[in-house]
Amino acid sequence: MATAGKVIKCKAAVAWEPNKPLVIEDIEVAPPQANEVRIKIVATGVCHTDLYHLFEGMHKDGFPAVLGHEGAGIVESVGPGVSEFQPGDRVIPLFISQCRECRFCKSPKTNQCEKGWAADHYDVMALADSRFTCKGKKVLQFMGASTFSEYTVMNQIAVAKIDPAAPLDKVCLLGCGVCTGFGAAVNTAKVEPGSTCAVFGLGAVGLAAVMGCKFAGAKRIFAVDTNPEKAEKARVFGATDFVNPKDYNKPISKVLAEMTNGGVDYSLECVGNVDVMRSALESCMKGWGVSVVVGWTDKHDFSARPIQLIAGRTWKGTLFGGFKSKDGVPQMVKAYMERKVKLDEFITHNMTLTQVNEAIELMKRGGCIRTVLSVSRQ
Amino acid sequence: MATAGKVIKCKAAVAWEPNKPLVIEDIEVAPPQANEVRIKIVATGVCHTDLYHLFEGMHKDGFPAVLGHEGAGIVESVGPGVSEFQPGDRVIPLFISQCRECRFCKSPKTNQCEKGWAADHYDVMALADSRFTCKGKKVLQFMGASTFSEYTVMNQIAVAKIDPAAPLDKVCLLGCGVCTGFGAAVNTAKVEPGSTCAVFGLGAVGLAAVMGCKFAGAKRIFAVDTNPEKAEKARVFGATDFVNPKDYNKPISKVLAEMTNGGVDYSLECVGNVDVMRSALESCMKGWGVSVVVGWTDKHDFSARPIQLIAGRTWKGTLFGGFKSKDGVPQMVKAYMERKVKLDEFITHNMTLTQVNEAIELMKRGGCIRTVLSVSRQ
Repeated sequence: MATAGKVIKCKAAVAWEPNKPLVIEDIEVAPPQANEVRIKIVATGVCHTDLYHLFEGMHKDGFPAVLGHEGAGIVESVGPGVSEFQPGDRVIPLFISQCRECRFCKSPKTNQCEKGWAADHYDVMALADSRFTCKGKKVLQFMGASTFSEYTVMNQIAVAKIDPAAPLDKVCLLGCGVCTGFGAAVNTAKVEPGSTCAVFGLGAVGLAAVMGCKFAGAKRIFAVDTNPEKAEKARVFGATDFVNPKDYNKPISKVLAEMTNGGVDYSLECVGNVDVMRSALESCMKGWGVSVVVGWTDKHDFSARPIQLIAGRTWKGTLFGGFKSKDGVPQMVKAYMERKVKLDEFITHNMTLTQVNEAIELMKRGGCIRTVLSVSRQ
Repeated sequence: MATAGKVIKCKAAVAWEPNKPLVIEDIEVAPPQANEVRIKIVATGVCHTDLYHLFEGMHKDGFPAVLGHEGAGIVESVGPGVSEFQPGDRVIPLFISQCRECRFCKSPKTNQCEKGWAADHYDVMALADSRFTCKGKKVLQFMGASTFSEYTVMNQIAVAKIDPAAPLDKVCLLGCGVCTGFGAAVNTAKVEPGSTCAVFGLGAVGLAAVMGCKFAGAKRIFAVDTNPEKAEKARVFGATDFVNPKDYNKPISKVLAEMTNGGVDYSLECVGNVDVMRSALESCMKGWGVSVVVGWTDKHDFSARPIQLIAGRTWKGTLFGGFKSKDGVPQMVKAYMERKVKLDEFITHNMTLTQVNEAIELMKRGGCIRTVLSVSRQ
């Protein structure tokens, strides 16, 4: 490509400081260094974790940054030592890397990786050593990805090559939310055929968790949300029952226990609220119930009575749905192409990168499931 | 036997009210009813759960009761419908039943049973429908067992028949503490060969957990206690390292993380303290660490940061070490007879039933590992 080896000037949405709208800027993206890949981002989802960083997090050291971590794109050029990718490859950036060499990657028990940005920087959520500059200033790379930019540079251990036929404005959702929810059910909870499940919170992650429960063969799937408008969408993804906690004057855990003769086999918290985490645990059947924390929050402790665990419940958590990222994302793309998992149904709005603040406001209002931003032309 | 079908008058230690010493009384033990077995208790351990009920619990409705739940004895007579037992059988009373018919017994995932006393009465911890009376009053059966009595009547689903050659004054410890700790490591945590473990709290349950980790093939076992005198005993059961939190001016989770390059694979809380539960979780390796709550408390919530779970740790709990009781206890007796598990080394004191208050005071002072009371002559 004509741009290979050169600095690319392009558009990106820059978060200059917390709690302020993003600014569309002309930024410079340096060429990929050793083991790096420069990617033209074609489309990106807007995820709550972006908001968390921007509005709710404590990451004052994480600015200025280019947000966005749920994208898909095309390799523009590669740095020295990269043999796995070549220009033109369709790829999804991964906020969890898979180096295949560290003790985590070698363990079948986890999808974490010691080599990625998250190993050292999860408290800041942004990597200082980025290839971005803007107005003479270094701009940080959010979650090692930064998909709210026409171009980004990733380490090859954090890039998944996917089926070139896959529509990038759909499969970008596999970069975070859909894999997170789906995998939480399939990989982390390990939902079994014939089981009973409850999913708390019906955003994109929760709906993907419902889909994961259905995929795994759950017999009954309770979709739990305080917004009754979510009921219909939940059924699209496989929910058999919709339960609105506001419709009852007793704890939702008691409601579910009565509806299930003791509790559900699996519950998934997809809100990021410690009170909901507790309810999700308490909604599980004693003896074998498994509750998975999928939603992200780090502002408060979660808590429960010891008897909840002593009575045989298990409390787990998940990052990116437990998927080993380079292995899992191409498989999920394949499953989508084979119509085994849904993606189109998550997308309620399509906008362009220049409308990113509008998309963020929409998400804050709860007015969407997922907005996909078109970033670059293919 | 001459006593079959008749009321037996015998000695028992009765807890008339909370926070008072037990009183050795003459009580009446009615004959076994349908599916019941009357057992002459030969020996019993004194366990913290007895103290919990007597001094720390809220179970005001649980009195008067005969405490004790870690015993061994000989079948005196059986009620109608009992074919599995006959007079003279050596048995261990089980505070968790195994009916083999309920959905819990049929599931390989749990050792709970829907038919036992605990299904409905765990909040009181004592069964009203007992065969005990004293001075004209009904006396409750604690945890469905009541081994601080020369005779007790149990449902046959809560009795394990054991090797008649087994010494009852040793294998009584398999009625609670040793199975609880050992099983927490082997059955609940599922400790793997070559792994690294930490056991918090080195009472009988904790030492049994150490023994379980060793039995399961753990490579390194950290025994954690604030009492340095526990170090030597911990090594007897297989601990490779003793760590006293008081020796460090940083959290014990950080100490263990530094000693293990990130944390232990398995941690077991054997204290019954919610702060220790949190430390135990935080001492686990992210990605795959499993922490098991073994100690009992129900006075406070336990808590932690959501990131602890989201980063891949699992929090579990255990009742009776996850052993299906009728199946597991005879196997543990066999393992003891084959010298695969230790029991003698837990016993620091031997007394008689009449010294039960002395044994309780000793336990409250932390002056023993286990006291075994001789109850009846064989």
